[in-house]
Amino acid sequence: MSATKIEVMPVAGELEQKASEMTVGEGEQEDIVDPWTVTSASAKGVDYDKLIKRFGSSKIDAKLIERIERVTGKPAHHLLRRGIFFSHRDMHFILNQYEQKKPFYLYTGRGPSSEAMHLGHLIPFIFTKWLQDTFDVPLVVQMTDDEKFLWKDLTLDEANRLAHENAKDIIACGFDINKTLIFSDLEYMGQVPEFYKNICQISKLVTFNQVKGIFGFGDSDCIGKIAFPPVQAAPSFSSSFPHIFNNRKDLPCLIPCAIDQDPYFRMTRDVAPRMGCLKPALVHSTFFPALQGAQSKMSASDPTSSIFLTDTDKQIKNKINKYAFSGGGATIEEHKEKGGNCEIDVSYQYLTFFMDDDEKLENIRKDYTKGELLTGYLKKELITILQKLVTEHREKRAKVTDEIVKQYMTPRKLAFDY
Amino acid sequence: MSATKIEVMPVAGELEQKASEMTVGEGEQEDIVDPWTVTSASAKGVDYDKLIKRFGSSKIDAKLIERIERVTGKPAHHLLRRGIFFSHRDMHFILNQYEQKKPFYLYTGRGPSSEAMHLGHLIPFIFTKWLQDTFDVPLVVQMTDDEKFLWKDLTLDEANRLAHENAKDIIACGFDINKTLIFSDLEYMGQVPEFYKNICQISKLVTFNQVKGIFGFGDSDCIGKIAFPPVQAAPSFSSSFPHIFNNRKDLPCLIPCAIDQDPYFRMTRDVAPRMGCLKPALVHSTFFPALQGAQSKMSASDPTSSIFLTDTDKQIKNKINKYAFSGGGATIEEHKEKGGNCEIDVSYQYLTFFMDDDEKLENIRKDYTKGELLTGYLKKELITILQKLVTEHREKRAKVTDEIVKQYMTPRKLAFDY
Repeated sequence: MSATKIEVMPVAGELEQKASEMTVGEGEQEDIVDPWTVTSASAKGVDYDKLIKRFGSSKIDAKLIERIERVTGKPAHHLLRRGIFFSHRDMHFILNQYEQKKPFYLYTGRGPSSEAMHLGHLIPFIFTKWLQDTFDVPLVVQMTDDEKFLWKDLTLDEANRLAHENAKDIIACGFDINKTLIFSDLEYMGQVPEFYKNICQISKLVTFNQVKGIFGFGDSDCIGKIAFPPVQAAPSFSSSFPHIFNNRKDLPCLIPCAIDQDPYFRMTRDVAPRMGCLKPALVHSTFFPALQGAQSKMSASDPTSSIFLTDTDKQIKNKINKYAFSGGGATIEEHKEKGGNCEIDVSYQYLTFFMDDDEKLENIRKDYTKGELLTGYLKKELITILQKLVTEHREKRAKVTDEIVKQYMTPRKLAFDY
Repeated sequence: MSATKIEVMPVAGELEQKASEMTVGEGEQEDIVDPWTVTSASAKGVDYDKLIKRFGSSKIDAKLIERIERVTGKPAHHLLRRGIFFSHRDMHFILNQYEQKKPFYLYTGRGPSSEAMHLGHLIPFIFTKWLQDTFDVPLVVQMTDDEKFLWKDLTLDEANRLAHENAKDIIACGFDINKTLIFSDLEYMGQVPEFYKNICQISKLVTFNQVKGIFGFGDSDCIGKIAFPPVQAAPSFSSSFPHIFNNRKDLPCLIPCAIDQDPYFRMTRDVAPRMGCLKPALVHSTFFPALQGAQSKMSASDPTSSIFLTDTDKQIKNKINKYAFSGGGATIEEHKEKGGNCEIDVSYQYLTFFMDDDEKLENIRKDYTKGELLTGYLKKELITILQKLVTEHREKRAKVTDEIVKQYMTPRKLAFDY
């Protein structure tokens, strides 16, 4: 059965390729979620509860959120409260560590395939920044420029240049320079032998059959692609960062990422015990929808499909007004009578990602559902929030010089002793 | 049909695994030659003329040897004159370069799988030393400790330690420290980003189908093995050594190696033009026979199958007297009547590798063939030569300190300007 391709904004290691189909859903209509393809048969997008079952991860439930708040003494981030980070692996283990004042670190990443990052790309970094601030732990951010070279029509130099450009956007999110390493695979591989050593160890424990099953690689794929998964796996082990962790190999890792990246870390968690290493813990996010809705196809070449971090106030306003899919009635009369559908209304969805105020959001949800608020109101609210967010981002990014990027990207000791 | 497995002493990247069968021979009896398996149906060993046809390389004929002597103004090395280096690719191109006073460099390697190197392992290094002295060019020697980790039951540390131990034996061959870089993959990968960049470029141009065809990899092989061929290919490109070649990527490479390593470089020559790089040139050697003869199986765990560089004078004497396969008659009477067979006599074969004196060797050949010399005489000559060679090697090796190894293994500019 054909499933509609929906917008995907993958996080760490954004790849494009035909992949093994991990289906979730019922009967004839199935969702497909892996690092290269996300398709859903439903206007509401992927059924995440079914995905949790299929992937074998755990739901982030009220109890876990409550525990996070108790342990940290801080309110949970709205991305957590609202179920956008919805799934996890071993998060209780990380909280145990934290309770016992034992160290852990954060690892996330980005595949630098284009200059223009969009709103969806920000989500994991916004949440990672909250995790770093809340738990006060080191963060490593992998820029998979090697992967983008292998999958895309890019030269090595261009992929590496994009890694540096995208690093500016990541830095603009406000990560503490004393607690954060950003690294390009193409550079880091030639700087730190321990990285390649971990890659060798992982590569020895994974067969072609396994990556075929996990990632859907085929015989006509280049061996560069086949060799890549261990590169994304290796930062899950603290020994890949001897400068930061003083050669300790026993520090737990927590990976915030979109759920489509989970296959990499299922593989990593499979090999970890055989390497005498800890399995990385994960928190998974849902996907950020395209303006046209959870079922429409995202396209980097279609600027109308999302808000870019380089968009002007006017572009933001126009795009949302023109393209943001409405869950409202066809006419004002119909809307007032039947109400709006928040589950498919893109403006509402975007507000859940970016509006801080829980109460205000809840009121919008109620009133829109009842038909008391029109889509125009939601769009206006969203435009204001996004114009502010993008303007602030642009201002912060403008202050990130090449010299600052270089500092973040230099392998070095961070402000933690081990 | 079953073919007898014969002794193989591969040179660069000695690997063990079931591999694609590259058969040479006629009818029911076939030779198999690839990086992991060499089997021959004949007591004389592999039919090298047929191998040249099958591999598509060129024979090193009298005309080429004469040209080498003319161009260099020096007599050809006996390993060349006696057909031990018997095959080549693009050697005339290298000679053209040399005639035009244009630079090139040498690349060879070793898979450090055991502490004890034997005589066969010395052959490519003896010839490479002659090439370096004769052409006055830089040499890079790859120690594939990553490969040995992937193929063998070795830890990374142990494979890396063996690389350093074997480097001592290589240094003892007399390579000029100002003109030679020895590098361990596990170390060099983390020191020089250009190495990984070239590996990425090669990996993007080779499919799993291709390495399946060339190396016989299967679906149950680990992805580390599948990813390895580009690691052995990359040193064929001068850009992998920016310290030595001042970032030039246009310097031709000549690779002396045993013929079983040719598959790696067929792959390399296939991708080179698509990378905008020169194809490496090659000179191929035959295999060094086991003491028990060209058909017997070499075994690292059987110390009687070869002479090790650590053997004492007494061990050398005993091994040759006891195990060196004789091509002589069953009795002295029969030998005097029918003569000896040099083609299968291991002592004679070994003399062709290690006796400098052409005239003396030729006299031995004639007299032995006529039955005028007994096997005992050949053995006595061989024992004297090998005791001297191994003693001298041991003395030279003893002088190679860890500090000297470190100097050879430090990425650095050599005594050449580009």
